[in-house]
Amino acid sequence: MKKYQRLAEQMMEQIALGVWLPGDKLPSLREQVVNSGMSFMTVSHAYQLLESQGRIVARPQSGYYVAPRAVTTRAVTAPAQVMPDNAVDINTYIFEVLQASRNASVLPFASAFPDPKLFPLPQLNRSLAQVSKTATAMSVIENLPPGNDELRHAIARRYALQGMTISPDEIVITAGALEALNLSLQAVTEPGDWVIVENPCFYGALQALERLRLKALSVATDVQEGIDLDALVQALQTYPVKACWLMTNSQNPLGFTLTPEKKARLVEILSEYNVTLIEDDVYSELYFGRDKPLPAKAWDKSDMTLHCSSFSKCLVPGFRIGWVAAGKHARRIQHLQLMSTLSTSSPMQLALVDYLATKRYDAHLRRLRRQLAERKQQAWQALMRALPPEVHIHHNDSGYFLWLELPTGLDAGVLSAKALEHHISIAPGKMFSTTDNWASFFRFNTAWGWSEREERAVETLGALIRRMMK
Amino acid sequence: MKKYQRLAEQMMEQIALGVWLPGDKLPSLREQVVNSGMSFMTVSHAYQLLESQGRIVARPQSGYYVAPRAVTTRAVTAPAQVMPDNAVDINTYIFEVLQASRNASVLPFASAFPDPKLFPLPQLNRSLAQVSKTATAMSVIENLPPGNDELRHAIARRYALQGMTISPDEIVITAGALEALNLSLQAVTEPGDWVIVENPCFYGALQALERLRLKALSVATDVQEGIDLDALVQALQTYPVKACWLMTNSQNPLGFTLTPEKKARLVEILSEYNVTLIEDDVYSELYFGRDKPLPAKAWDKSDMTLHCSSFSKCLVPGFRIGWVAAGKHARRIQHLQLMSTLSTSSPMQLALVDYLATKRYDAHLRRLRRQLAERKQQAWQALMRALPPEVHIHHNDSGYFLWLELPTGLDAGVLSAKALEHHISIAPGKMFSTTDNWASFFRFNTAWGWSEREERAVETLGALIRRMMK
Repeated sequence: MKKYQRLAEQMMEQIALGVWLPGDKLPSLREQVVNSGMSFMTVSHAYQLLESQGRIVARPQSGYYVAPRAVTTRAVTAPAQVMPDNAVDINTYIFEVLQASRNASVLPFASAFPDPKLFPLPQLNRSLAQVSKTATAMSVIENLPPGNDELRHAIARRYALQGMTISPDEIVITAGALEALNLSLQAVTEPGDWVIVENPCFYGALQALERLRLKALSVATDVQEGIDLDALVQALQTYPVKACWLMTNSQNPLGFTLTPEKKARLVEILSEYNVTLIEDDVYSELYFGRDKPLPAKAWDKSDMTLHCSSFSKCLVPGFRIGWVAAGKHARRIQHLQLMSTLSTSSPMQLALVDYLATKRYDAHLRRLRRQLAERKQQAWQALMRALPPEVHIHHNDSGYFLWLELPTGLDAGVLSAKALEHHISIAPGKMFSTTDNWASFFRFNTAWGWSEREERAVETLGALIRRMMK
Repeated sequence: MKKYQRLAEQMMEQIALGVWLPGDKLPSLREQVVNSGMSFMTVSHAYQLLESQGRIVARPQSGYYVAPRAVTTRAVTAPAQVMPDNAVDINTYIFEVLQASRNASVLPFASAFPDPKLFPLPQLNRSLAQVSKTATAMSVIENLPPGNDELRHAIARRYALQGMTISPDEIVITAGALEALNLSLQAVTEPGDWVIVENPCFYGALQALERLRLKALSVATDVQEGIDLDALVQALQTYPVKACWLMTNSQNPLGFTLTPEKKARLVEILSEYNVTLIEDDVYSELYFGRDKPLPAKAWDKSDMTLHCSSFSKCLVPGFRIGWVAAGKHARRIQHLQLMSTLSTSSPMQLALVDYLATKRYDAHLRRLRRQLAERKQQAWQALMRALPPEVHIHHNDSGYFLWLELPTGLDAGVLSAKALEHHISIAPGKMFSTTDNWASFFRFNTAWGWSEREERAVETLGALIRRMMK
């Protein structure tokens, strides 16, 4: 171990022991040179390492501080909330925020997508070119629902690598995970049925419920622990719930991943009440740890889980290819797809089959995960430097969202509107719930890389918040 | 004019004058040689010409007969029928028929698609290859709803060539016409609303109504004249109808094209009752006459028509690219699309833009129309030869469907089941209505080309029908 690494480790121990508390000012470089007897270069190196790991933060003209730890909002077992019926306003609002984030002159911190520059465009284009040589007139028919045979096999093999046995026959290829989720919901509900969602949750779930005239029950969900299982049980005892739509890995917008124990318990509870789980697992490949987390479906012994995912967030959004492992519902979902979009584009399916056969996918995913982790770290540091310390930044170890909490009383919707005037988009909490629990929160996309422009934008956000706090 | 042409013309005049009635046996070649004093070669040539034009039919070991004329079922102004709620059975049935027609060992006379070999695969693949060179990381975002800008402009220009002024801004690119139709219906109705459809109609309309929990009113529709406008008015006076979904050009399954006068009157009536027209116009390019027929939307002065079409039936089904010219509803439709499938694949949109820029599209369409007309003629002749004369074959001058009527009392569903045992699929009338008006009818796809195998299949059909008639 090098000298600077030893110093960094020593400081981390001190932080862990509470010698230095989150927010404390650390000894300056000069003071540390005197204390440690090491060279300025060594000390500076150690501080840079700690900064790059997110342990400490540099504040301009002030020095180094211990990074604030993510603050957990306590999960209070609150009764499930019946979503009020203001869906139309919310949809317009969501639409406007997302449209704004598409404008090239606007910084896309509100975006739901990662920077497409992170994707292997040349290789994907190579696969597209390959398809242009091999596609036959009959490919259309071969790729009708349930979708391309080889593609379904490739997906089944990826499940198998995680120890899950999913037959290619129960997989249906869809237009992204969004179609998979919508079809799944439709397959297991009738208008008027009760469906449980997280609060906050992916807005697509709320929109789907509204479209299909379903009644939404939102269950309190903690920023680190996920859905409150006691509240879930309470809701199941009170309402005749048909389905539960939630995210188990890298939840949108909060970012948590449920523990294996919690996933097991969740599946057990739902199966006890005979409630279908619609599992939205689009970020499962974007974990930062050692192993890919299992979906809740892995614990499902009674074929009550429809597992939905896609290649849109980790490989190629433009192809619009997702799938659902639908178990006994596979046939019903094929029917529904034939009635609504007929099928997924056949060249897109074929291009993906070609790409997956090159075996480059896992290498790409490893690189992508590293880049996303670095970018998230960078954004987090910048936010901590630029925003007033009263803003809580909820950190998490996967995906590319941060969940930020303004000081009580401040409205993230107001901040969003003001920020847009400065060509900065953020995703206010009210996009993710039709209750007003999340008015002071917003989601921040960290996947779009970091430069001087982003740095200045974050400073502007900080200035806007400070002005609102006055 | 050559000798054989003169003879053919003379015989046509005789047929027109009723000298020879439909079904009559014509003089044999030998007799005609004696009668006319012309050579065997000339007479044989003349008969071949008349046969190729569908005026006469050769029956093996028997001679030549005057072709039966298409029989028109009289449109009786019947009150609109409320569709009974047996949708689930029908859907399963439709699904099974369509699945069967996908099996390569089954003759796809039940298919809704033309033979994909009629499409310009090499050119489309060239466009795909081009996209693989030029697609950028940002194309995804540029092609989100309402869809690629150039593609919407190209579509708007095609409307302009027909004298219609449609702004690119009111066009939304969709996953085929089916998504366009589904989104349109959803945009203008609430569950429980009444919607008018034709009887018989495209089964996708019935399925969409069921999915969206709408109430279907089916209005009597004549095999040549189309929807009965008196019955339509009656229905509008009786029920609080919200929308009317129908086909104005080359209707599926009947094949008629409404006259310009009827289109104008239809639009006038609907606008008087403030009912939105959802116009399914997927076959508009497949006319056999001189000019492309206008859609009803061309007569619409009050922005009450959503015009839906696609490239799936005339250029490339596998891309899954359609659109709706949605007028004032364009924004709502974008919202709905963002909620359900998010968008159409971006490389598919780009490939289509590239293909359309090559200006080959119209040349392809001319060739396609000629091939479809030839194949239809061939199939028609073969059916007339092979089926008992009691079967009415309703001919029409566009698209690739024939509508066949078994002698009263015979069930086309039974025929379909028996035919499948012989690896022959047909589309029974009950796929196109939930009333039982069409039990003895079936739709026959003529676009898949003709060889010995098809010839034998049609003979098998004839034998099966004869057996049922006993």
